[in-house]
Amino acid sequence: MAHDDELRRLDSYWRAANYLSVGQIYLLDNPLLREPLKRRHIKPRLLGHWGTTPGLNFCYAHLNRVIRARDLDMIYVMGPGHGGPAAVANAWLEGTYSEVYPDVSFDERGMRRLFRQFSFPGGVPSHVAPETPGSIHEGGELGYSLAHAFGAVFDNPDLVVACVVGDGEAETGPLAASWHSNKFLDPVRDGAVLPILHLNGYKIANPTVLARIPEEELVQLLDGYGYHPLLVAGDEPASMHRKMAAALDQALDEIADIQRAAREHGATERRRWPLIVLRSPKGWTGPVEVDGKPVENTWRSHQVPLAGVCDDPAHLEQLERWLRSYRPEELFDDDGRPVAELRESAPAGERRMSANPHANGGLLLKPLVLPDFRDYAVQTGKPGTTTAEPTRVLGTFLRDVIRANPTNFRIMGADETQSNRLGDVFEATDRVFAAERLPTDEHQAAHGRVMEVLSEHLCQGWLEGYLLTGRHGLFNSYEAFVHIVDAMFNQHAKWLKVTRHLPWRRPIASLNYLLSSHVWRQDHNGFTHQDPGFLDVVMNKKPEIVRVYLPPDANTLLSVGDHCLRSRDYVNVVVAGKQPALNWLTMDEAVAHATRGIGIWEWASSDGGADPDVVMACAGDVPTLETLAAVDELRQTFPELRVRVVNVVDLMRLLPPSEHPHGLPDAEFDALFTTDKPIIFAFHGYPYLIHRLAYRRNGHANLHVRGYKEEGTTTTPFDMAILNDLDRFHLVMDVIDRVPSLGGRVAHVRQRMADRRLALRAHTREHGEDAPEIREWTWSY
Amino acid sequence: MAHDDELRRLDSYWRAANYLSVGQIYLLDNPLLREPLKRRHIKPRLLGHWGTTPGLNFCYAHLNRVIRARDLDMIYVMGPGHGGPAAVANAWLEGTYSEVYPDVSFDERGMRRLFRQFSFPGGVPSHVAPETPGSIHEGGELGYSLAHAFGAVFDNPDLVVACVVGDGEAETGPLAASWHSNKFLDPVRDGAVLPILHLNGYKIANPTVLARIPEEELVQLLDGYGYHPLLVAGDEPASMHRKMAAALDQALDEIADIQRAAREHGATERRRWPLIVLRSPKGWTGPVEVDGKPVENTWRSHQVPLAGVCDDPAHLEQLERWLRSYRPEELFDDDGRPVAELRESAPAGERRMSANPHANGGLLLKPLVLPDFRDYAVQTGKPGTTTAEPTRVLGTFLRDVIRANPTNFRIMGADETQSNRLGDVFEATDRVFAAERLPTDEHQAAHGRVMEVLSEHLCQGWLEGYLLTGRHGLFNSYEAFVHIVDAMFNQHAKWLKVTRHLPWRRPIASLNYLLSSHVWRQDHNGFTHQDPGFLDVVMNKKPEIVRVYLPPDANTLLSVGDHCLRSRDYVNVVVAGKQPALNWLTMDEAVAHATRGIGIWEWASSDGGADPDVVMACAGDVPTLETLAAVDELRQTFPELRVRVVNVVDLMRLLPPSEHPHGLPDAEFDALFTTDKPIIFAFHGYPYLIHRLAYRRNGHANLHVRGYKEEGTTTTPFDMAILNDLDRFHLVMDVIDRVPSLGGRVAHVRQRMADRRLALRAHTREHGEDAPEIREWTWSY
Repeated sequence: MAHDDELRRLDSYWRAANYLSVGQIYLLDNPLLREPLKRRHIKPRLLGHWGTTPGLNFCYAHLNRVIRARDLDMIYVMGPGHGGPAAVANAWLEGTYSEVYPDVSFDERGMRRLFRQFSFPGGVPSHVAPETPGSIHEGGELGYSLAHAFGAVFDNPDLVVACVVGDGEAETGPLAASWHSNKFLDPVRDGAVLPILHLNGYKIANPTVLARIPEEELVQLLDGYGYHPLLVAGDEPASMHRKMAAALDQALDEIADIQRAAREHGATERRRWPLIVLRSPKGWTGPVEVDGKPVENTWRSHQVPLAGVCDDPAHLEQLERWLRSYRPEELFDDDGRPVAELRESAPAGERRMSANPHANGGLLLKPLVLPDFRDYAVQTGKPGTTTAEPTRVLGTFLRDVIRANPTNFRIMGADETQSNRLGDVFEATDRVFAAERLPTDEHQAAHGRVMEVLSEHLCQGWLEGYLLTGRHGLFNSYEAFVHIVDAMFNQHAKWLKVTRHLPWRRPIASLNYLLSSHVWRQDHNGFTHQDPGFLDVVMNKKPEIVRVYLPPDANTLLSVGDHCLRSRDYVNVVVAGKQPALNWLTMDEAVAHATRGIGIWEWASSDGGADPDVVMACAGDVPTLETLAAVDELRQTFPELRVRVVNVVDLMRLLPPSEHPHGLPDAEFDALFTTDKPIIFAFHGYPYLIHRLAYRRNGHANLHVRGYKEEGTTTTPFDMAILNDLDRFHLVMDVIDRVPSLGGRVAHVRQRMADRRLALRAHTREHGEDAPEIREWTWSY
Repeated sequence: MAHDDELRRLDSYWRAANYLSVGQIYLLDNPLLREPLKRRHIKPRLLGHWGTTPGLNFCYAHLNRVIRARDLDMIYVMGPGHGGPAAVANAWLEGTYSEVYPDVSFDERGMRRLFRQFSFPGGVPSHVAPETPGSIHEGGELGYSLAHAFGAVFDNPDLVVACVVGDGEAETGPLAASWHSNKFLDPVRDGAVLPILHLNGYKIANPTVLARIPEEELVQLLDGYGYHPLLVAGDEPASMHRKMAAALDQALDEIADIQRAAREHGATERRRWPLIVLRSPKGWTGPVEVDGKPVENTWRSHQVPLAGVCDDPAHLEQLERWLRSYRPEELFDDDGRPVAELRESAPAGERRMSANPHANGGLLLKPLVLPDFRDYAVQTGKPGTTTAEPTRVLGTFLRDVIRANPTNFRIMGADETQSNRLGDVFEATDRVFAAERLPTDEHQAAHGRVMEVLSEHLCQGWLEGYLLTGRHGLFNSYEAFVHIVDAMFNQHAKWLKVTRHLPWRRPIASLNYLLSSHVWRQDHNGFTHQDPGFLDVVMNKKPEIVRVYLPPDANTLLSVGDHCLRSRDYVNVVVAGKQPALNWLTMDEAVAHATRGIGIWEWASSDGGADPDVVMACAGDVPTLETLAAVDELRQTFPELRVRVVNVVDLMRLLPPSEHPHGLPDAEFDALFTTDKPIIFAFHGYPYLIHRLAYRRNGHANLHVRGYKEEGTTTTPFDMAILNDLDRFHLVMDVIDRVPSLGGRVAHVRQRMADRRLALRAHTREHGEDAPEIREWTWSY
């Protein structure tokens, strides 16, 4: 039980945080109101979100109490991260802000700076952001707080994440799905999430759904999600402090009890984790009315409740009253530092939520112990004559990565890990599943390194939370469905971009996507499953953050996979096939090729290292197959034609070096592609992407790209290539059309190619499968 | 109560549908098993999803019973649309399939064709798809069934949508959020959705969450979502038929009761709508075991349970037993037609779910009654001297569109309609909100034309359902957050692409996006809210489907808005500002400009209609502003410089005509942009997009694009332009760098521009707002 005196101090702390929050939104100067408030003390542009802020501060103050009382290792995820002032205010109150940003000192001068910089050009963002100490959660796009919180506690048995879920955010799909994360939490080896559903009733301009259903229905919903809801409701601070303190004590007792039962007594039954419902007014403690309209406890308090302070003396006066209502003179000493009582209310050192190393995961990051990927190499023989399933081969490597890193590496997948043929990982681990398990289940267990749920949002959110707290992982997805998390990828890439300029944020493991079951091999599923456009989304983010790899075969995938698991602060996208496909490179060749990222395949070329007549470029497994088959055909048909084969693994090599650190210098690009010869480029994705990357190159005018042009259905692999003019025969026709030295004498060859396409298409439509000459084709040279 | 005889007939119908489903997955020939099954009767590639199919068929048969008993106007949305064979089988059984596709006749020959075409090259997809009669829901990407179902019943008071939600799909975020759609349904003017949560227990390779929580918890969850769950569980067909019939009768009684109370007795309390939980085995009635492993009621029945029938005689034999277990000889007559009893079990005409016109919404589409958009014109005066808020102006037009179309036009938005300054619509309507309303609420009502929920997924899903059933609408969103529905956009665009080739699918209204609060004006919110990349996603879809408009001012937005509301079968993306911005065009000029989509602004140009020295191109409101300000500066500084201003409204005009129907012929492109003069292009989005569109143009080598390069934070509008080198001074510098005739003599001008940028940046950082010379700038000429 919290003492009255403790609650009184807690209230002071809350008032201080509220005061600092309002100050950030409004004040340019006079931070401690040592003189009457004047127009010149006010910012010219008033920006920020007050509405959610006092509730976030309320929780922060109460969490500090229990952290100190129980010596908790706790971080705070603020779903309503629009309330950026709250996070900044508390970090400053705890002293962390001044430690991280010494310019913003722990005194009146620093407070002025703290206020001025907020949402000010050259200052800090208005939301919780990478710049905010103590945060792993950006406050812009809503919906991911709870998934981040769960990601953070996986494999962190001693960590508790307090996660405030806004009732606006709670309407989003990703958040609605996230409640079920408790079916994937192991009370023995994972920590605990304490969700605080904050019903302040309003969004920007609307009431919220969960605040407007009967309490009985809300409780049913939260019960149904598998939680034990504890209700805290009201608006009178003193009684709210008592209720919140009691609820938090109960919640933490319940968490401790669940963990003790599981850890010490081997309890295996899934228990209901506690959850707090905090129903408090939006804009709590702010202006009750402005210009005769209700503001507190309405959507009008969402942003800046007194918008007229620059022009309206009455507003200015009301702002001053509001600020003084927190009694700053009791809260800050003559130097502008929080008084001793407040300073002592904050936890110490790394127990401060703003300074907890879990919220700066790079501090805790340990490199993965990686087996030598070369040991998993496929024996290839002559190029293009043996086959392997690339992702299955990678799965053997990942299996041993799991074995060597039993507590800091996880694989996420939307029910597709087996389908993507990574199934060998189940020799080393299971899928986590905390709901009921049946004897007929396979590889479902209370603990495991593979997390599967039919929600790309959850996979992504969990993995982000896991990485941001200093661990490693991989998200495997069907290629088309990774678009479901386009927006989440964008936000994570933005986060990484900003952290690059924050030296105190230590590098974290890269977010690795393995996209399989890709556009060209959706034999079962058809058009809805055919979309290689995630690469285009990725390319829009800052070049220093993103990497895209298209390994053409199993050995190259191994090399790329190893590289990605070692990298930091990137988003790596690897596109790889799962179907049996020809091997092109020995392990040594694959390492060299993957390291260069792009290169001439001399063994496939017929230009003798000299000037070619045509460059056949390819990126992606199916385009590589079709290109090589086309080259084979060309070499047989036109022995004198000098063909050069260039394969691209690292797509960023195509960009100029001014645009991407991997960009190939122009001279090297020209040496590979020539400046004057036709280039037929067979690409895995939408063809425009290659033009977008290469439009500045000298040879660009000669570049002709084939790729996916949004044609498809449930059909055979070769029929897919034909539908999109990516097939070997069309590539030969492209060469014929573009190499003038072949002249008119080749019209009959062109016709033969066209006829073979038609015949093969007819065969497929007759027999329901590709002709043997396609299925069994191997490289001749 | 259903009679035993009725249930016996119903079982026959179910067996027939199951037989036809298995036949589709396996059989090339011998469709009625008139001879023993042989290897040659089997498809070489076995593709399809059996697991969910018998459950879908079970529901279909039962729904048919109640449709007939109650003369219901009902359509069927199959969330687990992987069970494509079910939809096809029932459409054929009802005769619809043969009416739509006469080649697939209603006899043995047709049945053979039906089987053969399924998931066969040149045939039909394996999922429920646009090709499937009776469907408004594509069965590929999971999560949108319930939102589609609700969208379909809005403003369709007599329609009931039965929506099967798979327990896999139920794990997705969009579906989890969709349950709350019942808070947005008006029992008076909307129809009813009957969700059938189908717990068959497994996904591809995993158990499902909802099937593995205690029934009590599941009931709490569904209660908490505001439904009244009716449970139907078991695996013994006869008893399951009785339970399902009783549950359906009860559900439809409850629906009728809720509707009667609201419609006839004016009841306003939100009631619990019924929901059926159907717990039946995955792969029900299929092989119980294969090769000693359990298949029925496990994930192993997900796709093709007997995968070895081509090679393994035992499998072939087991398949034949399985097929014969449905007793086809009782179900089909000598011609292969369903026996009379079955034919009579199906509803008649448009009551058949496969033939219901709501599932082919174009049949019901009525054009909008549109007021003359010219009446809402802003009076402009001299170009670039007066201001308007473009979306606010559009809002006045939309207000009257709503008034003129009170039952078939809705606006969706994620709590952003007011923020996007479309607030004038609330003069004509309210926001729909069926949860508790308080006296302090504004514009919340049981019925209204604006739907706001903090879920882009719901907005998009509802609108898709609404459009696909033949109505009209608009989705307004913050530009950055529309990425949340990238994947849903992709799927809808794919749907439209396929329907283009299905003449029986009548054109529907376009899906219109209004993207405001865009990348350049996120003064409040910063970096997370800055992302113009949706345009890149859109460009990847089939050109005949997608349109992108960037009206530079209010009048042009009106013209574009009107055009979009009249269009059919497109996705229109309109990007427009909400902040006060300069007006450039009179209404007449705006109409002419929007109609051409691209054009020279002679009044702004100084080339006298002759050969320019430089082309200043722009697309988007902020880029247009900065371009005109740069041109103003150029004309003052270099009076002899011949500058041409080209503004682009319709981005597709930049593509070659071979690539897009709007593509400008090369000669016209050259006439606008020249082939040899520098083009400085200021673009709203990521600059690469312009290169991607224009790389084939003659003048492409001279094209220099400025746009958003992923730099931003919470800052002023002009600071955003500077951060991304899109500001007027940088554009002037770009001209100086690229127009050789200006020569070395201009070094001092370049320096002056650079200095002004620095000075203005410093001003902004000092004062927190842009300098007056920026804020108050107007066009001089």
